[in-house]
Amino acid sequence: MDEIAENRLIDSVARQFRRSPAQVNRLHQSDSEIVELPGFPGQRLAVTVDTVSEEITAGLYRRPETMGWIAVMASLSDLAAVGADPLGLVMGVTLAPGSDEAFRSGIAAGMELACLTAGCHILGGDTNAGPAVALTGCAVGLVPKDQTMLRTGCRPGDAVFVTGGVGIGNALALVRLAGLPDALLPELEYRPVARIREGKAIRRAASCCMDTSDGLLATLDQLSRLNNAGFRIECDWDRLLEPRALDLCRKTATPPWTMTAGAHGEFELVFCVQAARVEAFRAETQAAGVNSLQIGTVLSSPGLILVLPGGKAVKVDFAPVRNLLNTVGGDLKRYVEEFRAFGQRAGLE
Amino acid sequence: MDEIAENRLIDSVARQFRRSPAQVNRLHQSDSEIVELPGFPGQRLAVTVDTVSEEITAGLYRRPETMGWIAVMASLSDLAAVGADPLGLVMGVTLAPGSDEAFRSGIAAGMELACLTAGCHILGGDTNAGPAVALTGCAVGLVPKDQTMLRTGCRPGDAVFVTGGVGIGNALALVRLAGLPDALLPELEYRPVARIREGKAIRRAASCCMDTSDGLLATLDQLSRLNNAGFRIECDWDRLLEPRALDLCRKTATPPWTMTAGAHGEFELVFCVQAARVEAFRAETQAAGVNSLQIGTVLSSPGLILVLPGGKAVKVDFAPVRNLLNTVGGDLKRYVEEFRAFGQRAGLE
Repeated sequence: MDEIAENRLIDSVARQFRRSPAQVNRLHQSDSEIVELPGFPGQRLAVTVDTVSEEITAGLYRRPETMGWIAVMASLSDLAAVGADPLGLVMGVTLAPGSDEAFRSGIAAGMELACLTAGCHILGGDTNAGPAVALTGCAVGLVPKDQTMLRTGCRPGDAVFVTGGVGIGNALALVRLAGLPDALLPELEYRPVARIREGKAIRRAASCCMDTSDGLLATLDQLSRLNNAGFRIECDWDRLLEPRALDLCRKTATPPWTMTAGAHGEFELVFCVQAARVEAFRAETQAAGVNSLQIGTVLSSPGLILVLPGGKAVKVDFAPVRNLLNTVGGDLKRYVEEFRAFGQRAGLE
Repeated sequence: MDEIAENRLIDSVARQFRRSPAQVNRLHQSDSEIVELPGFPGQRLAVTVDTVSEEITAGLYRRPETMGWIAVMASLSDLAAVGADPLGLVMGVTLAPGSDEAFRSGIAAGMELACLTAGCHILGGDTNAGPAVALTGCAVGLVPKDQTMLRTGCRPGDAVFVTGGVGIGNALALVRLAGLPDALLPELEYRPVARIREGKAIRRAASCCMDTSDGLLATLDQLSRLNNAGFRIECDWDRLLEPRALDLCRKTATPPWTMTAGAHGEFELVFCVQAARVEAFRAETQAAGVNSLQIGTVLSSPGLILVLPGGKAVKVDFAPVRNLLNTVGGDLKRYVEEFRAFGQRAGLE
């Protein structure tokens, strides 16, 4: 865990706080914080906070509707990853003093459309003036005590699933950072959805779960560290990537691994299911109309093994990529160069 | 309600959102958002979000410990005002990229000390890099269904109480904005406490409740508008003001009304109790060791009447002060001038 700068940062902050005796999850162990509700033994409260600001500063989102949408979905995705049913959100909105009514209204419209899509509501919020746009979502929900998903719990031999094709977040990041035409991935169509329904459908069977908001490979890397286990992932890009991300790779001659390796993820859920339960699980989720794509298996030794199209298996040390933004001191141009160099060294292209 | 710029802003944002059918409070009606918990009929969930950033930008807080403390207490105070028992907080922390370890650690220390003082815990959080320090607290708690306090519900004849002397927030603001020596009110001693224990002790008897985080008179003005009722307040400054605020007024020849009228409040609770219940209520709170200071009565006509020492009763139209930061376009120097001119016109000094 210590090899990753973000984990060290979280550890160093958390060390200053006592842990609540009512809190179910340990540090790093869950996408949402989970607490016991006194007098309500069957259910637990899930609560999470997430600020969307760096993506806006980096120029990834230009439309206020996208900013509002993502702020809501990012928090809801943390609820989805523990299997919670949302009770609602409160939103902290910081805007520059000069922001016009259309901008403000666009953010609210994006938030509301996200809530409509996910079947929940904004309960309230707080507005502030500040030098940069920052949208903080705080979502609360309930999850049954015997069906709470954590990031830990998978065992060697478990099957690894994802709720849908990944890469749309990194596709948008590529378009923006490489200065490609917006038409290659219109921002209006960039509306990744938190997998609330899926989280509830899989929570009984899943041995662990985490969302892909930091990108698929970062998610798998973190799960590997937390579970002291490895992942063998079948990189059939046509199945693994969201069609628009795959299409962008083809049109721009971008190697597909980048869509799983960049840090701007989306809101799919990565989860594991015991091998013996897989068949029943498939039948269940199909009946519920929930998408679940088997992408690999859990190994007993930590680390990531990517099986490329054609069958070549590549063992990947992903820590340098997860630490890259730190290593380059936030310089996005150097980030992109080092990122590509990593893939070439690792034999991914 | 419409006369106040902030109310209009909240209305214009809220208009874009559907209201949750599970939400108990209407817009403006409560310091926290309150939702029903399905399958848990005796209790409701209270949730609130509050960002501390403008106070930091304005230079009111210099120590990171103060910033962390206030971010926690501001959210907890919203829970206190509905009578909730905290389950915990999640915190969104945005710091400038260059922030050093001591600064970061000071913020965490302030948060933790506030939690220790209030008897609760930080459950988790999210850290971000941004151009200005912004600390967002999101607190969750439980409140019994039959003892939930709202801002509405008081009736003419009710007694008006406050949980303690007010003005310490405005005292700090005066020291900072007038460039007075820190020794007049050392920031290390500026640690206003959210009235969680008091909220629980008064929630059975209170007909309405709101915290003083925007200053005492703004709180009373808002309660007046929401309840279509007025308040007659006995301005015995020695009783009404926190001793250090009173002391600062004396040392700097500042008229005491300013400590109740400035926008930088604290975390006392203003609440009302039916006249017939006052005696029993006093006995109850005394037995519980909870401070409650009777400061006036509820009138049938909206508005504020301040009874000054000596007995002169002054009817105050407080809307211009609540709108003042807007009116002067955020110019703090003009704010202070216009603010004092208001008090002189109103006959408060």
